[in-house]
Amino acid sequence: KTYRVAVIPGDGIGKEVVPEGVRVLEKVAKRHGFALQLDWFDFSSCDYYLKHGRMMPEDWKQQVGGHDAIFFGAVGWPKAVPDHVSLWGSLLLFRRDFDQYVNLRPVKLMPGVPCPLAGRAPGDIDFFVVRENTEGEYSSIGGKMFPGTEREFVVQETVMTRTGIDRVLKYAFELARRRPKRHLTSATKSNGISITMPYWDERVEEMAKAYPDVRWDKYHIDILTANFVLHPDWFDVVVASNLFGDILSDLGPACAGTIGIAAAANINPERTWPSVFEPVHGSAPDIAGQGIANPIGQIWSGAMMLDHLGEGEAAAAVLGAIEKVLAEKTLRTRDLGGNADTVACGKAIAEMI
Amino acid sequence: KTYRVAVIPGDGIGKEVVPEGVRVLEKVAKRHGFALQLDWFDFSSCDYYLKHGRMMPEDWKQQVGGHDAIFFGAVGWPKAVPDHVSLWGSLLLFRRDFDQYVNLRPVKLMPGVPCPLAGRAPGDIDFFVVRENTEGEYSSIGGKMFPGTEREFVVQETVMTRTGIDRVLKYAFELARRRPKRHLTSATKSNGISITMPYWDERVEEMAKAYPDVRWDKYHIDILTANFVLHPDWFDVVVASNLFGDILSDLGPACAGTIGIAAAANINPERTWPSVFEPVHGSAPDIAGQGIANPIGQIWSGAMMLDHLGEGEAAAAVLGAIEKVLAEKTLRTRDLGGNADTVACGKAIAEMI
Ligand SMILES: CC(C)[C@H](C(=O)O)[C@@H](O)C(=O)O
Ligand SMILES: CC(C)[C@H](C(=O)O)[C@@H](O)C(=O)O
Repeated sequence: KTYRVAVIPGDGIGKEVVPEGVRVLEKVAKRHGFALQLDWFDFSSCDYYLKHGRMMPEDWKQQVGGHDAIFFGAVGWPKAVPDHVSLWGSLLLFRRDFDQYVNLRPVKLMPGVPCPLAGRAPGDIDFFVVRENTEGEYSSIGGKMFPGTEREFVVQETVMTRTGIDRVLKYAFELARRRPKRHLTSATKSNGISITMPYWDERVEEMAKAYPDVRWDKYHIDILTANFVLHPDWFDVVVASNLFGDILSDLGPACAGTIGIAAAANINPERTWPSVFEPVHGSAPDIAGQGIANPIGQIWSGAMMLDHLGEGEAAAAVLGAIEKVLAEKTLRTRDLGGNADTVACGKAIAEMI
Repeated sequence: KTYRVAVIPGDGIGKEVVPEGVRVLEKVAKRHGFALQLDWFDFSSCDYYLKHGRMMPEDWKQQVGGHDAIFFGAVGWPKAVPDHVSLWGSLLLFRRDFDQYVNLRPVKLMPGVPCPLAGRAPGDIDFFVVRENTEGEYSSIGGKMFPGTEREFVVQETVMTRTGIDRVLKYAFELARRRPKRHLTSATKSNGISITMPYWDERVEEMAKAYPDVRWDKYHIDILTANFVLHPDWFDVVVASNLFGDILSDLGPACAGTIGIAAAANINPERTWPSVFEPVHGSAPDIAGQGIANPIGQIWSGAMMLDHLGEGEAAAAVLGAIEKVLAEKTLRTRDLGGNADTVACGKAIAEMI
């Protein structure tokens, strides 16, 4: 079996960690008896923007829309290109145009990773954040009134559709059903945000009826963030709106030690379009170009890609290799107290497979 | 000098902790040579609602609007009264009708309080969250389209006005200027929320010009919550929108050990209306009626009230007494590993003054 994967390093450390991700993917493909056809693209990067005046070519959908998956690095550097231009011209465009309505992010305390929470060991923190990825607080609808005057004000809509909520809830409940704990937590704020969030709650309650085998609860986002710190062992699958999911999927990995190794999948479950697999960390301008970035977020995202492609055993092999390398101080990168550089860490993981 | 204070216990553990707050206030008043005229009110409670069909009497503004401050417990129990009724009929009404546009919440690791963050000691965590308290994401403007059908959707506006942003920023910069570190951090999400948050950033940049002596930075809310866990020592004054401030002022106290002792002030800086001083914890139905609630959030809120009334020395004396009692295991309540009940803990603090 051959999978066609579009490889987009992007910019910043994306260019350094994507090759390591690819190294591991090629190794595991060989071991597990499938093939990867990798097509590399230089767009969706600020470098591309500085040359062409746009983040991606006009026909980007034709170029990558037919692939089985997109393996993406990071975007956002150099800062000459404003954030809203680089992000809304690439990352957020993928999510919306390819209808990747699920953003899935594992939160897992790994061996060898120092945990900022006192007394927590691997096993105590092991859950998923399922984030709605196309609507909600990221609507871009709104504007400014009385510009330049004292009376100036801005408004922006949060938009939540039944279709948009239900489909991500369904994904989250299905995921919870497949996990041993069968537990789903919904993030809300219906006591303060009085229209959209009560509607979210309503849909959760409705969807829960179809999953009597899944235990579910809900927390307001304020106390939920507190409970990530105080009781990370309470969670199994956490489902949240676009904004709340964004927050929880940075906070979660931080509680599990570092966002430097966190992985993410932007999934179109219907497979009408390719899904995008990208680490949570950004382009990291402060360390870009030095060859010291931690490639694990990228490699872990590769494992999620394999899972999505139906190569679950290969995915598990990659995750196992990551855990083994993390447990070995000398094989870790500097951000985790080791002294390996990006390439050495990537090679070590590939060799473990 | 005599201060007129409206005392509103509310419901749940509010009724248990407010008397302890009052005990401490009366003691410190005697010691520091001022008087308190305390007027007690039974409204702004679910009990009141169940009797009268509303959370507060029609003339509530006349009844408490002339006081120098409102000392408030908690509201939200019994649950027969839906959250949005109890909260929007009391707490959130105070904030808006009394134009309490600053919600100030200290985040401070206290001696004797077990910290969930590894290796942190008192002194490492000591900052303020300044939350916009009247507009933003809590607008209540919006509605539902195509109700009851597959096409159903809801929208809700976030509204940010120049007046509303500037005044809370001014308060935050002034506070930062009075602190030794003179450091302000702004919470944003301008890379994802593309209209309101860039405007917030713009106003921060503008306001910063008037405070060249204050060092300032900004973080997107996702990475900011991560940094609360990873680097709580980075913060001094954190200013945020209504929703982001809500999140940060639960997460912050959790990082500092517990929201059970966190204090808050809802401030109308112009003193046109009374400010409300209330602990961050709610009515806590699970332990209400047992006399075991921790009264420190309430007592600490009382200290903030004294500060607001201009009795800074008395406020410092209360805070000092809280620290002394917290350091003593036997004087702590159960939630902090002690065995004192609500009254014993309150009395201990009063005696320390
Ligand atoms: C009860 C709720 C509406 C309130 C808020 O969101 O403002 C609370 O969480 C708070 O922080 O005071
Ligand atoms: C870069 C930014 C727009 C993005 C988001 O908010 O979705 C990022 O934080 C993420 O989580 O992928």
